Amino acid sequence: MNYPLIDENNQVEAVILGDGDFPVHPVATALLHNSAYLCCCDGAGRRCIEHGLMPNAIVGDGDSLSPDFIRRYCNIIHLIREQDDNDLTKATRHCLARGIQRIVYLGTTGKREDHTLGNIVLMIRYMCEFGLQPTLVTDYGWFVPASGMNIFDSFLQQQVSIFNFGCTDFRSEGLRWPSFPYQSLWQGTLNESIGDSFTLYGDGSYLVFRTFEGKQNNPKDFLIE
Amino acid sequence: MNYPLIDENNQVEAVILGDGDFPVHPVATALLHNSAYLCCCDGAGRRCIEHGLMPNAIVGDGDSLSPDFIRRYCNIIHLIREQDDNDLTKATRHCLARGIQRIVYLGTTGKREDHTLGNIVLMIRYMCEFGLQPTLVTDYGWFVPASGMNIFDSFLQQQVSIFNFGCTDFRSEGLRWPSFPYQSLWQGTLNESIGDSFTLYGDGSYLVFRTFEGKQNNPKDFLIE
Repeated sequence: MNYPLIDENNQVEAVILGDGDFPVHPVATALLHNSAYLCCCDGAGRRCIEHGLMPNAIVGDGDSLSPDFIRRYCNIIHLIREQDDNDLTKATRHCLARGIQRIVYLGTTGKREDHTLGNIVLMIRYMCEFGLQPTLVTDYGWFVPASGMNIFDSFLQQQVSIFNFGCTDFRSEGLRWPSFPYQSLWQGTLNESIGDSFTLYGDGSYLVFRTFEGKQNNPKDFLIE
Repeated sequence: MNYPLIDENNQVEAVILGDGDFPVHPVATALLHNSAYLCCCDGAGRRCIEHGLMPNAIVGDGDSLSPDFIRRYCNIIHLIREQDDNDLTKATRHCLARGIQRIVYLGTTGKREDHTLGNIVLMIRYMCEFGLQPTLVTDYGWFVPASGMNIFDSFLQQQVSIFNFGCTDFRSEGLRWPSFPYQSLWQGTLNESIGDSFTLYGDGSYLVFRTFEGKQNNPKDFLIE
Protein backbone atom coordinates (compact mmCIF):
# COMPACT_ATOMS: atom_id res chain seq x y z
CA MET A 1 0.00 0.00 0.00
CA ASN A 2 1.10 3.58 -0.60
CA TYR A 3 0.86 6.23 2.09
CA PRO A 4 0.92 9.65 0.38
CA LEU A 5 2.08 12.95 1.81
CA ILE A 6 -0.67 15.26 3.01
CA ASP A 7 -1.05 18.96 2.35
CA GLU A 8 -3.55 21.83 2.43
CA ASN A 9 -5.32 20.55 -0.70
CA ASN A 10 -6.33 17.15 0.62
CA GLN A 11 -10.05 16.42 0.44
CA VAL A 12 -11.19 14.48 3.46
CA GLU A 13 -14.14 12.10 3.78
CA ALA A 14 -14.50 12.77 7.51
CA VAL A 15 -12.73 14.59 10.30
CA ILE A 16 -13.12 13.64 13.95
CA LEU A 17 -12.12 16.57 16.15
CA GLY A 18 -11.00 15.78 19.70
CA ASP A 19 -10.96 18.25 22.56
CA GLY A 20 -7.17 18.46 22.85
CA ASP A 21 -5.26 21.40 21.43
CA PHE A 22 -7.32 23.07 18.70
CA PRO A 23 -5.43 22.72 15.37
CA VAL A 24 -3.29 25.69 14.31
CA HIS A 25 -0.92 24.29 11.66
CA PRO A 26 -2.07 25.32 8.14
CA VAL A 27 -2.38 21.69 6.97
CA ALA A 28 -4.41 20.69 10.03
CA THR A 29 -6.76 23.68 9.77
CA ALA A 30 -7.19 23.10 6.00
CA LEU A 31 -8.18 19.49 6.66
CA LEU A 32 -10.66 20.69 9.29
CA HIS A 33 -12.28 23.04 6.76
CA ASN A 34 -12.10 20.69 3.76
CA SER A 35 -13.85 17.76 5.39
CA ALA A 36 -17.10 16.45 3.88
CA TYR A 37 -18.25 15.31 7.34
CA LEU A 38 -17.17 16.87 10.63
CA CYS A 39 -17.74 14.90 13.82
CA CYS A 40 -16.73 16.47 17.14
CA CYS A 41 -16.01 14.74 20.43
CA ASP A 42 -18.15 16.29 23.15
CA GLY A 43 -16.52 19.58 24.29
CA ALA A 44 -14.77 19.91 20.92
CA GLY A 45 -18.21 20.60 19.44
CA ARG A 46 -18.56 23.74 21.51
CA ARG A 47 -15.06 24.92 20.65
CA CYS A 48 -15.63 24.16 16.98
CA ILE A 49 -18.76 26.34 16.91
CA GLU A 50 -16.86 29.08 18.77
CA HIS A 51 -14.35 28.91 15.89
CA GLY A 52 -17.18 29.50 13.40
CA LEU A 53 -17.50 25.93 12.10
CA MET A 54 -20.75 23.96 12.35
CA PRO A 55 -20.17 20.23 12.93
CA ASN A 56 -22.34 17.55 11.33
CA ALA A 57 -22.36 15.65 14.60
CA ILE A 58 -21.25 16.00 18.22
CA VAL A 59 -20.70 12.62 19.86
CA GLY A 60 -19.79 11.81 23.44
CA ASP A 61 -20.99 11.38 26.98
CA GLY A 62 -22.09 15.03 27.24
CA ASP A 63 -20.03 15.56 30.38
CA SER A 64 -18.41 18.68 29.01
CA LEU A 65 -21.53 20.26 27.46
CA SER A 66 -23.98 22.51 29.30
CA PRO A 67 -27.71 21.63 29.34
CA ASP A 68 -28.36 24.84 27.34
CA PHE A 69 -25.86 23.85 24.68
CA ILE A 70 -27.34 20.33 24.48
CA ARG A 71 -30.87 21.73 24.02
CA ARG A 72 -29.76 24.23 21.38
CA TYR A 73 -27.85 21.69 19.27
CA CYS A 74 -29.97 18.62 20.02
CA ASN A 75 -30.39 17.91 16.29
CA ILE A 76 -26.67 17.12 15.89
CA ILE A 77 -25.80 15.86 19.40
CA HIS A 78 -25.53 12.10 19.96
CA LEU A 79 -25.14 11.33 23.67
CA ILE A 80 -23.66 7.93 24.40
CA ARG A 81 -23.35 7.25 28.11
CA GLU A 82 -21.52 3.91 28.10
CA GLN A 83 -18.07 4.09 29.69
CA ASP A 84 -16.30 1.24 27.88
CA ASP A 85 -15.09 3.52 25.11
CA ASN A 86 -13.75 7.07 25.26
CA ASP A 87 -15.34 9.83 23.19
CA LEU A 88 -12.84 9.36 20.36
CA THR A 89 -13.94 5.75 19.89
CA LYS A 90 -17.63 6.70 20.22
CA ALA A 91 -17.15 9.26 17.43
CA THR A 92 -15.31 6.64 15.37
CA ARG A 93 -18.18 4.15 15.75
CA HIS A 94 -20.56 6.95 14.73
CA CYS A 95 -18.64 7.49 11.46
CA LEU A 96 -18.22 3.76 10.89
CA ALA A 97 -22.01 3.30 11.12
CA ARG A 98 -22.30 5.85 8.28
CA GLY A 99 -20.01 3.83 6.03
CA ILE A 100 -17.02 6.15 6.42
CA GLN A 101 -13.66 4.37 6.09
CA ARG A 102 -11.06 7.13 5.82
CA ILE A 103 -11.04 9.33 8.89
CA VAL A 104 -8.69 12.18 9.76
CA TYR A 105 -8.31 12.77 13.50
CA LEU A 106 -7.53 16.31 14.68
CA GLY A 107 -7.28 17.86 18.15
CA THR A 108 -6.32 14.55 19.76
CA THR A 109 -3.01 15.63 21.30
CA GLY A 110 -1.85 18.40 23.63
CA LYS A 111 -3.18 18.78 27.16
CA ARG A 112 -3.19 15.60 29.27
CA GLU A 113 -0.43 13.30 28.01
CA ASP A 114 -2.25 10.10 29.01
CA HIS A 115 -5.02 11.07 26.59
CA THR A 116 -2.41 11.86 23.93
CA LEU A 117 -0.78 8.45 24.32
CA GLY A 118 -4.11 6.63 24.40
CA ASN A 119 -5.44 8.45 21.34
CA ILE A 120 -2.33 7.82 19.24
CA VAL A 121 -2.29 4.11 20.08
CA LEU A 122 -6.02 3.82 19.32
CA MET A 123 -5.15 4.28 15.63
CA ILE A 124 -3.78 0.72 15.69
CA ARG A 125 -7.09 -0.51 17.11
CA TYR A 126 -9.13 1.40 14.51
CA MET A 127 -7.10 -0.23 11.73
CA CYS A 128 -7.01 -3.77 13.13
CA GLU A 129 -10.41 -4.03 14.79
CA PHE A 130 -12.57 -1.60 12.77
CA GLY A 131 -10.83 -1.98 9.38
CA LEU A 132 -10.39 1.79 9.05
CA GLN A 133 -7.66 3.85 7.40
CA PRO A 134 -7.15 6.50 10.08
CA THR A 135 -4.72 9.43 9.96
CA LEU A 136 -3.99 11.34 13.15
CA VAL A 137 -2.83 14.85 12.25
CA THR A 138 -1.19 17.18 14.77
CA ASP A 139 0.45 20.61 14.49
CA TYR A 140 3.82 18.94 13.81
CA GLY A 141 3.06 16.01 11.51
CA TRP A 142 0.86 12.96 11.22
CA PHE A 143 0.59 9.36 12.41
CA VAL A 144 -0.71 6.45 10.31
CA PRO A 145 -1.07 2.83 11.42
CA ALA A 146 0.18 0.19 9.00
CA SER A 147 0.99 -3.49 8.70
CA GLY A 148 3.01 -5.56 6.25
CA MET A 149 4.95 -3.92 3.39
CA ASN A 150 4.20 -0.29 2.56
CA ILE A 151 5.65 2.66 0.69
CA PHE A 152 5.56 6.04 2.42
CA ASP A 153 5.91 9.13 0.26
CA SER A 154 8.42 11.49 1.79
CA PHE A 155 11.04 14.15 1.10
CA LEU A 156 14.70 14.62 1.90
CA GLN A 157 15.28 15.09 5.64
CA GLN A 158 11.66 14.56 6.60
CA GLN A 159 11.77 13.49 10.24
CA VAL A 160 10.30 10.00 10.74
CA SER A 161 9.48 7.98 13.85
CA ILE A 162 8.31 4.38 13.85
CA PHE A 163 6.48 2.71 16.74
CA ASN A 164 6.46 -1.09 16.60
CA PHE A 165 3.41 -2.86 17.97
CA GLY A 166 4.30 -6.52 17.88
CA CYS A 167 6.46 -6.99 14.77
CA THR A 168 9.19 -9.60 15.27
CA ASP A 169 10.54 -8.98 11.76
CA PHE A 170 10.96 -5.36 10.74
CA ARG A 171 13.03 -3.72 7.99
CA SER A 172 13.30 -0.37 6.21
CA GLU A 173 14.71 1.12 3.03
CA GLY A 174 15.20 4.84 2.47
CA LEU A 175 15.77 5.91 6.07
CA ARG A 176 19.01 7.31 7.49
CA TRP A 177 19.24 4.63 10.20
CA PRO A 178 18.16 1.10 9.17
CA SER A 179 15.17 -0.20 11.10
CA PHE A 180 15.07 -3.40 13.13
CA PRO A 181 12.37 -5.12 15.22
CA TYR A 182 12.29 -2.41 17.90
CA GLN A 183 11.59 -3.89 21.32
CA SER A 184 10.78 -0.58 22.99
CA LEU A 185 8.66 2.26 21.65
CA TRP A 186 11.46 4.83 21.96
CA GLN A 187 13.87 2.85 19.77
CA GLY A 188 12.26 3.68 16.42
CA THR A 189 12.00 7.42 17.03
CA LEU A 190 13.99 10.27 15.44
CA ASN A 191 14.84 8.70 12.10
CA GLU A 192 15.03 10.67 8.84
CA SER A 193 14.10 10.14 5.21
CA ILE A 194 16.92 10.20 2.65
CA GLY A 195 14.71 10.63 -0.43
CA ASP A 196 11.21 11.02 -1.83
CA SER A 197 9.91 7.79 -0.32
CA PHE A 198 10.82 5.06 2.12
CA THR A 199 9.65 1.48 2.43
CA LEU A 200 8.81 -0.37 5.61
CA TYR A 201 8.18 -4.05 6.12
CA GLY A 202 6.87 -5.52 9.36
CA ASP A 203 5.18 -8.85 10.12
CA GLY A 204 2.70 -7.09 12.43
CA SER A 205 1.34 -3.60 13.11
CA TYR A 206 3.27 -0.37 13.45
CA LEU A 207 2.66 3.37 13.62
CA VAL A 208 4.55 5.85 11.45
CA PHE A 209 4.94 9.55 12.27
CA ARG A 210 6.11 11.93 9.53
CA THR A 211 6.76 15.65 10.12
CA PHE A 212 5.36 18.42 7.92
CA GLU A 213 8.74 20.13 7.64
CA GLY A 214 12.22 18.76 7.11
CA LYS A 215 14.99 19.17 9.62
CA GLN A 216 16.57 22.14 7.87
CA ASN A 217 13.39 24.08 7.17
CA ASN A 218 12.65 25.14 10.69
CA PRO A 219 15.23 23.59 12.96
CA LYS A 220 14.19 25.46 16.11
CA ASP A 221 10.77 23.85 16.00
CA PHE A 222 12.08 20.35 15.84
CA LEU A 223 14.93 20.27 18.31
CA ILE A 224 12.61 19.27 21.06
CA GLU A 225 14.95 17.90 23.62
CA MET B 1 7.25 0.51 47.42
CA ASN B 2 5.29 3.68 48.10
CA TYR B 3 4.85 6.36 45.45
CA PRO B 4 3.96 9.63 47.24
CA LEU B 5 2.01 12.55 45.85
CA ILE B 6 4.09 15.50 44.69
CA ASP B 7 3.53 19.17 45.43
CA GLU B 8 5.25 22.57 45.41
CA ASN B 9 7.29 21.72 48.52
CA ASN B 10 9.11 18.70 47.13
CA GLN B 11 12.90 18.92 47.33
CA VAL B 12 14.48 17.38 44.27
CA GLU B 13 17.92 15.79 43.91
CA ALA B 14 18.09 16.61 40.20
CA VAL B 15 15.91 17.97 37.42
CA ILE B 16 16.53 17.22 33.78
CA LEU B 17 14.83 19.84 31.62
CA GLY B 18 13.92 18.86 28.05
CA ASP B 19 13.28 21.28 25.22
CA GLY B 20 9.55 20.55 24.93
CA ASP B 21 6.96 22.91 26.41
CA PHE B 22 8.56 24.98 29.17
CA PRO B 23 6.82 24.12 32.48
CA VAL B 24 4.01 26.44 33.59
CA HIS B 25 2.07 24.44 36.20
CA PRO B 26 2.94 25.66 39.75
CA VAL B 27 4.14 22.21 40.86
CA ALA B 28 6.34 21.81 37.78
CA THR B 29 7.88 25.28 38.11
CA ALA B 30 8.45 24.78 41.86
CA LEU B 31 10.31 21.52 41.15
CA LEU B 32 12.41 23.35 38.55
CA HIS B 33 13.40 25.99 41.12
CA ASN B 34 13.82 23.61 44.09
CA SER B 35 16.23 21.22 42.40
CA ALA B 36 19.70 20.74 43.89
CA TYR B 37 21.11 19.98 40.43
CA LEU B 38 19.66 21.30 37.16
CA CYS B 39 20.69 19.58 33.93
CA CYS B 40 19.31 20.90 30.63
CA CYS B 41 19.03 19.11 27.31
CA ASP B 42 20.71 21.20 24.62
CA GLY B 43 18.32 24.01 23.56
CA ALA B 44 16.55 23.83 26.92
CA GLY B 45 19.71 25.32 28.43
CA ARG B 46 19.27 28.49 26.42
CA ARG B 47 15.58 28.75 27.29
CA CYS B 48 16.34 28.10 30.95
CA ILE B 49 18.82 30.98 31.06
CA GLU B 50 16.30 33.20 29.23
CA HIS B 51 13.91 32.34 32.10
CA GLY B 52 16.50 33.57 34.62
CA LEU B 53 17.72 30.18 35.85
CA MET B 54 21.36 29.08 35.59
CA PRO B 55 21.72 25.32 34.91
CA ASN B 56 24.49 23.25 36.50
CA ALA B 57 24.97 21.48 33.18
CA ILE B 58 23.80 21.61 29.57
CA VAL B 59 24.11 18.22 27.87
CA GLY B 60 23.41 17.27 24.26
CA ASP B 61 24.69 17.23 20.72
CA GLY B 62 24.83 21.05 20.54
CA ASP B 63 22.70 21.10 17.39
CA SER B 64 20.37 23.71 18.83
CA LEU B 65 22.99 25.96 20.40
CA SER B 66 24.81 28.79 18.60
CA PRO B 67 28.65 28.87 18.58
CA ASP B 68 28.48 32.10 20.61
CA PHE B 69 26.30 30.47 23.26
CA ILE B 70 28.60 27.43 23.41
CA ARG B 71 31.67 29.66 23.90
CA ARG B 72 29.98 31.75 26.59
CA TYR B 73 28.77 28.80 28.64
CA CYS B 74 31.59 26.36 27.85
CA ASN B 75 32.18 25.69 31.56
CA ILE B 76 28.78 24.01 31.93
CA ILE B 77 28.23 22.62 28.40
CA HIS B 78 28.91 18.92 27.77
CA LEU B 79 28.72 18.17 24.04
CA ILE B 80 28.12 14.50 23.24
CA ARG B 81 27.99 13.85 19.52
CA GLU B 82 27.05 10.16 19.45
CA GLN B 83 23.66 9.50 17.87
CA ASP B 84 22.66 6.25 19.62
CA ASP B 85 20.93 8.11 22.43
CA ASN B 86 18.77 11.20 22.37
CA ASP B 87 19.61 14.25 24.47
CA LEU B 88 17.32 13.11 27.29
CA THR B 89 19.30 9.88 27.69
CA LYS B 90 22.61 11.74 27.39
CA ALA B 91 21.52 14.03 30.23
CA THR B 92 20.40 11.01 32.23
CA ARG B 93 23.80 9.31 31.81
CA HIS B 94 25.40 12.59 32.89
CA CYS B 95 23.42 12.59 36.17
CA LEU B 96 23.94 8.85 36.67
CA ALA B 97 27.72 9.36 36.43
CA ARG B 98 27.39 11.85 39.32
CA GLY B 99 25.67 9.28 41.52
CA ILE B 100 22.20 10.80 41.17
CA GLN B 101 19.38 8.24 41.46
CA ARG B 102 16.16 10.26 41.77
CA ILE B 103 15.60 12.45 38.74
CA VAL B 104 12.61 14.62 37.93
CA TYR B 105 12.09 15.17 34.19
CA LEU B 106 10.45 18.42 33.08
CA GLY B 107 9.82 19.92 29.64
CA THR B 108 9.71 16.50 27.96
CA THR B 109 6.23 16.76 26.42
CA GLY B 110 4.41 19.18 24.14
CA LYS B 111 5.60 19.95 20.62
CA ARG B 112 6.41 16.90 18.45
CA GLU B 113 4.30 13.98 19.67
CA ASP B 114 6.85 11.35 18.61
CA HIS B 115 9.30 12.94 21.06
CA THR B 116 6.59 13.01 23.74
CA LEU B 117 5.86 9.30 23.28
CA GLY B 118 9.53 8.37 23.18
CA ASN B 119 10.37 10.42 26.28
CA ILE B 120 7.53 8.98 28.35
CA VAL B 121 8.41 5.40 27.44
CA LEU B 122 12.11 6.03 28.20
CA MET B 123 11.16 6.20 31.90
CA ILE B 124 10.70 2.41 31.78
CA ARG B 125 14.21 2.08 30.34
CA TYR B 126 15.72 4.39 32.97
CA MET B 127 14.16 2.26 35.72
CA CYS B 128 14.94 -1.18 34.26
CA GLU B 129 18.30 -0.55 32.60
CA PHE B 130 19.80 2.31 34.67
CA GLY B 131 18.20 1.44 38.05
CA LEU B 132 16.86 4.99 38.45
CA GLN B 133 13.70 6.26 40.11
CA PRO B 134 12.54 8.76 37.49
CA THR B 135 9.45 10.97 37.67
CA LEU B 136 8.26 12.71 34.51
CA VAL B 137 6.27 15.79 35.46
CA THR B 138 4.11 17.70 32.99
CA ASP B 139 1.67 20.60 33.32
CA TYR B 140 -1.18 18.13 33.95
CA GLY B 141 0.27 15.45 36.21
CA TRP B 142 3.17 13.03 36.45
CA PHE B 143 4.33 9.63 35.19
CA VAL B 144 6.30 7.10 37.24
CA PRO B 145 7.55 3.71 36.07
CA ALA B 146 7.02 0.80 38.45
CA SER B 147 7.13 -2.97 38.68
CA GLY B 148 5.70 -5.53 41.09
CA MET B 149 3.42 -4.47 43.97
CA ASN B 150 3.25 -0.78 44.87
CA ILE B 151 1.11 1.69 46.79
CA PHE B 152 0.36 5.01 45.12
CA ASP B 153 -0.75 7.89 47.34
CA SER B 154 -3.77 9.57 45.83
CA PHE B 155 -6.97 11.49 46.57
CA LEU B 156 -10.62 11.04 45.76
CA GLN B 157 -11.31 11.44 42.02
CA GLN B 158 -7.68 11.83 41.07
CA GLN B 159 -7.52 10.81 37.41
CA VAL B 160 -5.24 7.82 36.86
CA SER B 161 -3.94 6.12 33.72
CA ILE B 162 -1.92 2.92 33.65
CA PHE B 163 0.26 1.80 30.74
CA ASN B 164 1.22 -1.87 30.81
CA PHE B 165 4.63 -2.81 29.42
CA GLY B 166 4.67 -6.58 29.44
CA CYS B 167 2.69 -7.62 32.54
CA THR B 168 0.69 -10.81 31.98
CA ASP B 169 -0.75 -10.62 35.50
CA PHE B 170 -2.06 -7.21 36.59
CA ARG B 171 -4.46 -6.18 39.35
CA SER B 172 -5.56 -3.04 41.20
CA GLU B 173 -7.29 -2.01 44.41
CA GLY B 174 -8.69 1.45 45.03
CA LEU B 175 -9.50 2.41 41.44
CA ARG B 176 -12.97 2.99 40.04
CA TRP B 177 -12.56 0.38 37.28
CA PRO B 178 -10.63 -2.78 38.24
CA SER B 179 -7.42 -3.27 36.29
CA PHE B 180 -6.53 -6.30 34.22
CA PRO B 181 -3.49 -7.26 32.10
CA TYR B 182 -4.10 -4.57 29.48
CA GLN B 183 -3.06 -5.78 26.04
CA SER B 184 -3.10 -2.33 24.42
CA LEU B 185 -1.74 0.91 25.82
CA TRP B 186 -5.10 2.70 25.54
CA GLN B 187 -6.94 0.15 27.69
CA GLY B 188 -5.58 1.31 31.06
CA THR B 189 -6.24 5.00 30.53
CA LEU B 190 -8.88 7.23 32.15
CA ASN B 191 -9.32 5.45 35.46
CA GLU B 192 -9.97 7.25 38.75
CA SER B 193 -8.93 6.92 42.38
CA ILE B 194 -11.68 6.23 44.93
CA GLY B 195 -9.64 7.13 48.03
CA ASP B 196 -6.35 8.37 49.43
CA SER B 197 -4.30 5.59 47.88
CA PHE B 198 -4.49 2.75 45.39
CA THR B 199 -2.46 -0.42 45.03
CA LEU B 200 -1.22 -1.95 41.82
CA TYR B 201 0.32 -5.34 41.22
CA GLY B 202 1.96 -6.38 37.97
CA ASP B 203 4.39 -9.18 37.17
CA GLY B 204 6.37 -6.83 34.90
CA SER B 205 6.83 -3.10 34.27
CA TYR B 206 4.16 -0.43 33.98
CA LEU B 207 3.81 3.35 33.87
CA VAL B 208 1.36 5.23 36.08
CA PHE B 209 0.06 8.73 35.34
CA ARG B 210 -1.66 10.72 38.11
CA THR B 211 -3.20 14.16 37.58
CA PHE B 212 -2.55 17.15 39.82
CA GLU B 213 -6.24 17.96 40.11
CA GLY B 214 -9.29 15.77 40.63
CA LYS B 215 -12.06 15.50 38.10
CA GLN B 216 -14.31 18.00 39.89
CA ASN B 217 -11.69 20.66 40.62
CA ASN B 218 -11.24 21.93 37.13
CA PRO B 219 -13.37 19.80 34.83
CA LYS B 220 -12.82 21.87 31.69
CA ASP B 221 -9.10 21.18 31.80
CA PHE B 222 -9.52 17.46 31.91
CA LEU B 223 -12.24 16.73 29.39
CA ILE B 224 -9.73 16.37 26.65
CA GLU B 225 -11.66 14.52 24.05
